[in-house]
Amino acid sequence: MEAGPGPPPPTPEREPLSLAEIRDVWPLLTPGDRIQAFLLLPRDDAEDFFFSVAARDQAEIVLGMPGREQRSWVRLLPPDDAADLIQAAAVEKRDALLALLDEPTRREVTALLAYSEDNAGGLMNPRYIRLRPEMTVDEAISYVRKQMREQPRTIYYGYVLDSEQRLLGVVSFRELFTATVRTRVAEIMTRQVTTIPEHMDQEAVSLKFGQSHLVALPVVDVEGHMKGIVTVDDVVDVVREEATEDMQKVGGVEALDAPYLQIDMRRMIRKRVGWLCVLFLGEMLTASAMGFFEKEIARAVVLALFIPLIISSGGNSGSQATTLVIRAMALGEVRLRDWWVVVRREFIAGIGLGVVLAAIGFLRIVTWEGLFHTYGPQYLSIAATVSCSLVGVVLWGTLAGSMLPFILRRFGFDPASASAPFVATLVDVSGLVIYFTVAATILRGKLL
Amino acid sequence: MEAGPGPPPPTPEREPLSLAEIRDVWPLLTPGDRIQAFLLLPRDDAEDFFFSVAARDQAEIVLGMPGREQRSWVRLLPPDDAADLIQAAAVEKRDALLALLDEPTRREVTALLAYSEDNAGGLMNPRYIRLRPEMTVDEAISYVRKQMREQPRTIYYGYVLDSEQRLLGVVSFRELFTATVRTRVAEIMTRQVTTIPEHMDQEAVSLKFGQSHLVALPVVDVEGHMKGIVTVDDVVDVVREEATEDMQKVGGVEALDAPYLQIDMRRMIRKRVGWLCVLFLGEMLTASAMGFFEKEIARAVVLALFIPLIISSGGNSGSQATTLVIRAMALGEVRLRDWWVVVRREFIAGIGLGVVLAAIGFLRIVTWEGLFHTYGPQYLSIAATVSCSLVGVVLWGTLAGSMLPFILRRFGFDPASASAPFVATLVDVSGLVIYFTVAATILRGKLL
Repeated sequence: MEAGPGPPPPTPEREPLSLAEIRDVWPLLTPGDRIQAFLLLPRDDAEDFFFSVAARDQAEIVLGMPGREQRSWVRLLPPDDAADLIQAAAVEKRDALLALLDEPTRREVTALLAYSEDNAGGLMNPRYIRLRPEMTVDEAISYVRKQMREQPRTIYYGYVLDSEQRLLGVVSFRELFTATVRTRVAEIMTRQVTTIPEHMDQEAVSLKFGQSHLVALPVVDVEGHMKGIVTVDDVVDVVREEATEDMQKVGGVEALDAPYLQIDMRRMIRKRVGWLCVLFLGEMLTASAMGFFEKEIARAVVLALFIPLIISSGGNSGSQATTLVIRAMALGEVRLRDWWVVVRREFIAGIGLGVVLAAIGFLRIVTWEGLFHTYGPQYLSIAATVSCSLVGVVLWGTLAGSMLPFILRRFGFDPASASAPFVATLVDVSGLVIYFTVAATILRGKLL
Repeated sequence: MEAGPGPPPPTPEREPLSLAEIRDVWPLLTPGDRIQAFLLLPRDDAEDFFFSVAARDQAEIVLGMPGREQRSWVRLLPPDDAADLIQAAAVEKRDALLALLDEPTRREVTALLAYSEDNAGGLMNPRYIRLRPEMTVDEAISYVRKQMREQPRTIYYGYVLDSEQRLLGVVSFRELFTATVRTRVAEIMTRQVTTIPEHMDQEAVSLKFGQSHLVALPVVDVEGHMKGIVTVDDVVDVVREEATEDMQKVGGVEALDAPYLQIDMRRMIRKRVGWLCVLFLGEMLTASAMGFFEKEIARAVVLALFIPLIISSGGNSGSQATTLVIRAMALGEVRLRDWWVVVRREFIAGIGLGVVLAAIGFLRIVTWEGLFHTYGPQYLSIAATVSCSLVGVVLWGTLAGSMLPFILRRFGFDPASASAPFVATLVDVSGLVIYFTVAATILRGKLL
C-alpha cells in the first residue's frame, strides 16, 4: 500500500496491521498503544475487530478516538450492544456516549440501560420483526422487507402482535417463506411460544435456550407485552461468562470480571486476598484444635506425621463433591429439593472412597513397618487409627462438600461460593477432631 | 382429555403428563419408567421434549419405543442431531438406528459419523443453502425457496459455491432480501469469509464463534470445498460441555460425561477414586517428609501446630492461581508463549498475598501470646518462622499453580488436569520442606 498525497500519517514508520496481528498483541498492549494499533487497521478489518471484542474494549476504543470519529463507531452497533458499551464505560462518560447516538436509537438504548446488565432485559435487542395475525403471507413478506430496510434487524422469526403489542404467536421465516402467498399469518403461526420474562436472570435465560434449542426467544413483560428478543449468540457469551465466574469462585477467587492478562495488578490481588484471608483465619482453627491435642502429639509424635495426609484426603474428597454439585446445579440438573437424593448418593460414594483410601493407608503403614521398622511395636494400632480416621474424614468431606452448596442456595447465596478451598478448610478443622478422637479411642493405654 | 374408544391404554390410571411435569421428574426416573412417562405425553409436547433433551436421552427414548414407532422419531431429527443420537447409543444398536433413516439422510449421517464427535465435522449440519455467483437476487430467492421445500435447512446465510463446490462467498439472507431483484449474487456477496477447517477441535470452534459473532459458520476441507455449516445453537452446548469438563477436572474429578443424578453409582466412584488415590499417594510424601523432621517436632511440638495452617495456605493460593490460568487458557486469553508474562504477574501476586497472610499470622501469634501465654518465651522467633514460611509457601504455591497448566499443555496434556487438589498436594509436600528449613534457620540454638 503506498502512502497517498496530503499530510503524512502520524506514525509514518509503521506498516498497516492485519486482523491476526492485532488479535495477537491486543491483550499485551497498554490502553494508549491499543488505540494507536487500532488506528493502523484498514477500515474493513477495524470494523471486524471492533465487532469481535468485548464491550469493555469497544468502550476503550471509542473513548480513545478523536472526538469527530467517535460517532461513526458507536452508531455501528445495534441498540443492545450500544447499551453494553455504555455500561462498560466509566459512569462520567456515559452521557457523552449516549449523546453520540441518533434520536430513536438513544431512546431504545436508554430503555435498555434501565435493566440490570445480567437479566433478560439487559441481553435483549428491542428490534425485531413485527407481524399482524390478519396479514397474508404476501403482505407479511413485504412488511418484513420494509422493516428491514428501515433498520437492520434479526430475521429468524416474525413475532405476531395484537394492537396492544401483546405477543400472539411466532412464525419462523422458513414457514413464512415456504407457505403459499394467500395464507394468513394467523394460520401458520405457532401459538405455544416459549417466552422469557423481562427480569429473568441471565443464567436462567441460558438454560431456557438449552431446553428450547431455538435461535431467538421473545422477552415479554408480566402482561405479555413484547419487549424485545434475545438471540442465541448473546447466550454463548453468557454461558461462557457464567462458567468463568463459577469456576473462579470454586477455585477460591472472586469473579475477576476482566481477562486475566488485562486486569490491573492491584485489583487482581484484591480479588484473591479476601478469600485467602478468610481461609487463613478459618485454618487458624486447626492450630487451636491441635493446641488441644498438644499433649497427645508430644506423647506420640508419630500421630503428627499423618496429619497432612488425613486432613488433605478429607479436603480432596470435599472438593470433588462440591465441584460436582455446584456444576450440576448451574446446569439445572440438580435442584434444591433434590438434596436428599444427593445425600444418599454421596453417602455411598463417601463410604466407597473412604474404604479404598483406608485400605491403601493400612497397606502403606504395614509395608513400611515390614521394610524399615518405622512405626514401632504398635504399628497395627497406628494403621487402624489412620484407616478408621480416613473413612470418617472422607465420608465427612464428601457430605459437607455436597451439602454446602444446598445450604448456601437455601439462604439465597450463590452455591458457587462453596469454593473447593473453603470446603477443604472446613474439613481440615473437623478432620483433625475426627483423627484425634479416633486416636484417643484406639490408642488409649497403648501410645496415649 | 377423555379416553377414546378402542383397547384400554397400558396404564389406565395415569393422567396425561405435561411438559413441565416430565422435565421435573425425568432425572429421577429409571430408564423403564422414562419410556412410560414419555408415552404419556401428548404428541406435540412429546416432540418438544424430544428435541430439548440430550442425544443420550434421545437414544434411550427411541430404543425404548415399540419398533414400529422408532422410525418416525429418528426421522424428526436433522442429520447432525441424528448422527449425535446414533453416536450416543451402544455400538451394537447403531446399525439398526441407521437403518431407520431414509436413503439420502442415511448417506449424510454416515458421512458425519466418520468425524470425531468433538471436532467441527462432528458438529456440522450438511444441509445449507447453496447459491451460484451468476444468479440474480430474484433467481436466488426462488432457488432458496426450492431448496427449503425439498428439505428444511438453516436459513441465515446462503453460501455461494463454484461448480466444484468450493466456497466463493456468503450472502446474508438480510442482504438477499433487501437488494434489488436484478443484482447478481456475486455483487452482494462477502468474499472474506471466516471458515472452519473440518477437523478443528470443538473448543477452538467455539472460540471462533466468540470472535466472529455470527450465527453460522461454514466448514471447509483443506482445498476449500464446502462440507456443511456449524450453527451457534450447537456451540452453546459445546461451551457448556467444555466448561463442565474443565470445572470437574479442576475439582479433581474425571469428566463425568453424564448428568450428576443420572450417572451410575459405580461409574461415579470410578471417576473420583482415581484422582483421589493419586493425591493420596502424593500426600503420603508429606508423612515421609515429616518423618525427616520427627526429631525437630519432638523437640518443639509447637512447630506441629502450624503445619496445617502453613501448608493449606500454599494449597489455597495454588488453587487460585491454577484455576485462573486454566480458565484464561480455555478462553484463549492466555497462550503458551505468554508464560513469562504470567510468571511475572504471579510473582508479584504471590509476594503480595504472602505478605498479607504473614502479617496476619504474626499478629495472631503475638496476640495469643499476650492474651494466653501460649507459645512461651521464644514466641517472637516462632512468629518470625511462621511469617517467613508463609511468604515462601504462598509464593511457591502461586508460581507452581500458575506454571503447571503451561507445563501440561507444553507436553500435550490438557491444562485442566492441573486440578486444584493436585496443586495443593504438590504444594503441601514442598511447603513442609520450606517450613522446616525456615524453622531450622531461625530457631537453631533456641528451640531446636
